[in-house]
Amino acid sequence: MIATPYLLYLGHADDEIGIKTARGLAVFRPEICLGEFRDDACPLTLGLPRLSFAEAVTAGARTLVLGIANSGGMLDPAVVRDAARAMEAGLDIASGLHQRLKDEPLLAETAARTGRLLHDVRDPPPGLPTGTGSKRPGKRLLTVGTDCSVGKMYTTLCLQRAMAKRGIACDFRATGQTGILIAGSGVPLDAVPADFIAGAIEQLSPTRHDDGWDLIEGQGSLFHPAFAGVSTGLLHGAQPDAIVMCHDPSRRLMRGLSDREPPNLATCLAANLAVARLTSPAVRAIGLALNTSSLEETEALALCRRMADAFGLPCTDPFRMGVEPILDRLLVEYPLSVAALAGATR
Amino acid sequence: MIATPYLLYLGHADDEIGIKTARGLAVFRPEICLGEFRDDACPLTLGLPRLSFAEAVTAGARTLVLGIANSGGMLDPAVVRDAARAMEAGLDIASGLHQRLKDEPLLAETAARTGRLLHDVRDPPPGLPTGTGSKRPGKRLLTVGTDCSVGKMYTTLCLQRAMAKRGIACDFRATGQTGILIAGSGVPLDAVPADFIAGAIEQLSPTRHDDGWDLIEGQGSLFHPAFAGVSTGLLHGAQPDAIVMCHDPSRRLMRGLSDREPPNLATCLAANLAVARLTSPAVRAIGLALNTSSLEETEALALCRRMADAFGLPCTDPFRMGVEPILDRLLVEYPLSVAALAGATR
Repeated sequence: MIATPYLLYLGHADDEIGIKTARGLAVFRPEICLGEFRDDACPLTLGLPRLSFAEAVTAGARTLVLGIANSGGMLDPAVVRDAARAMEAGLDIASGLHQRLKDEPLLAETAARTGRLLHDVRDPPPGLPTGTGSKRPGKRLLTVGTDCSVGKMYTTLCLQRAMAKRGIACDFRATGQTGILIAGSGVPLDAVPADFIAGAIEQLSPTRHDDGWDLIEGQGSLFHPAFAGVSTGLLHGAQPDAIVMCHDPSRRLMRGLSDREPPNLATCLAANLAVARLTSPAVRAIGLALNTSSLEETEALALCRRMADAFGLPCTDPFRMGVEPILDRLLVEYPLSVAALAGATR
Repeated sequence: MIATPYLLYLGHADDEIGIKTARGLAVFRPEICLGEFRDDACPLTLGLPRLSFAEAVTAGARTLVLGIANSGGMLDPAVVRDAARAMEAGLDIASGLHQRLKDEPLLAETAARTGRLLHDVRDPPPGLPTGTGSKRPGKRLLTVGTDCSVGKMYTTLCLQRAMAKRGIACDFRATGQTGILIAGSGVPLDAVPADFIAGAIEQLSPTRHDDGWDLIEGQGSLFHPAFAGVSTGLLHGAQPDAIVMCHDPSRRLMRGLSDREPPNLATCLAANLAVARLTSPAVRAIGLALNTSSLEETEALALCRRMADAFGLPCTDPFRMGVEPILDRLLVEYPLSVAALAGATR
């Protein structure tokens, strides 16, 4: 287990998408985030107190979370130096990057000398099975997207919160480093050996018999030329009854690419349903989730209405407007059993 | 590098598909395969001399190749014991299984004591990039399939041989353990971390300017619920100009599964073309390759004719009947440049 509370590391990041791990933690687990560490040059903030390593330790922080991400997941030399200094000050280090903390000689040496711990959240669990595609009991929802970083984790977490609030049994199933740090468990899907993508998800979301829902965090996009394999295996392993399509209407180019536009939303939705049908023939789309942070509120509401009409699906910005329309539709399409309803209205 | 010649290990395997690594080596690199090691109970043979470990060493063998495979890629305890005995006799060990030789205490200890080497062919190379999807120069052919183990590697190797025989520049690009042992290099795609599937293939098959062909070994199937993620990333990373669909007409159930039939061939072909178009919009199917080993010759020929008529594509059993019809079609659809033709007819 990773010791809390956390100090969240922004360093010299200057890209909002690059700090999504830190922001996700600040938003969904504010009670364990004491402050943020950032360079003078960093134009971004999570709105948390800005603390030095020593100040954070004095305030009770236990772990520095490298809440940064970049395509490829490599550790910047400046980040390595900062992490070593944080250990000297008394903090453990947690990272979700592909490049492992323990593989950095400076960090391994500092950890050995100071007794501080290095947590590589992206180490996949050993002994993963291959997928079977056999239908297993339980209801599952998976978020999918037109691109990476369009709100799949946020949407899934918002749905989990709203569902739990209604008293319905449900579990958030994390598939990325931020989700794992938030949930306390999960599988770092992008680091799983390719043969085990679907099997890892079958294991992450096992048989359930309580009429509740597994809400599974999506990854990548079927239309991202680097990551569509991950998204495909995730669709097959999840066997979703329901999918929610996530989209950022301000995105002009696919994440990390200079020559590729995001796909048409209808094309993308149809492709996701087609791939999902291999292991979940009755899969249905039950909502659209937009990240409207680039739009004025009236524009955002108008866009959601237009999309809802065009697709015949509830459309909302989960973070800004809530997920109630999607949740309502889900519960109409998949009514709770009498037993679960009794639980939900208790 | 792995020392040759090889002794090929069959052990107590009783499943022809399970020994496909050993058979692939015996067929495509007979000059480096001295013999086979098998238990009395093993009903299979590669037609090579049956040798004990001591006899193999006396005959000059340098490495025991664990030429066996199973779903999940685990090492059987009996195999571990045999490998340790082989090392005592003087042989290095090479394996393409997921479970690493070096992670087996008995083997690690025996290797350290005897000075023999353990080669885990499935260790992916470090520092892989993520995919870009950007079009790169060069012509590429990828084999795809209705299932795992339907002849993708054989078809690719047969195409490479036939093309080289015509004097056309071409390279076999290995993506599985057998292919890597045959080619001497490649990427063990099923062990690559999920985020890097497409990027690994972009690296494996780089830009080429000689008007020749990269012939890329396919993996899995878009319709296998465990491995479709691998196949998807491979299609995107390969950017194939041409695909050849491989199929085993005797296959009743998908490899390793008890409840799933192989897909319809036309559906499967259309799905592969649709997925490939994300990074190679002009991709074309240029042939069908059947594994007809379960059929009489007249039946096999009749089936190939029927399929060719139904799909409007050349259809052959590459191993039994050669790949000339597919190669002819390829060269009609993608004519060689004058310079390459001069080379080819020299």
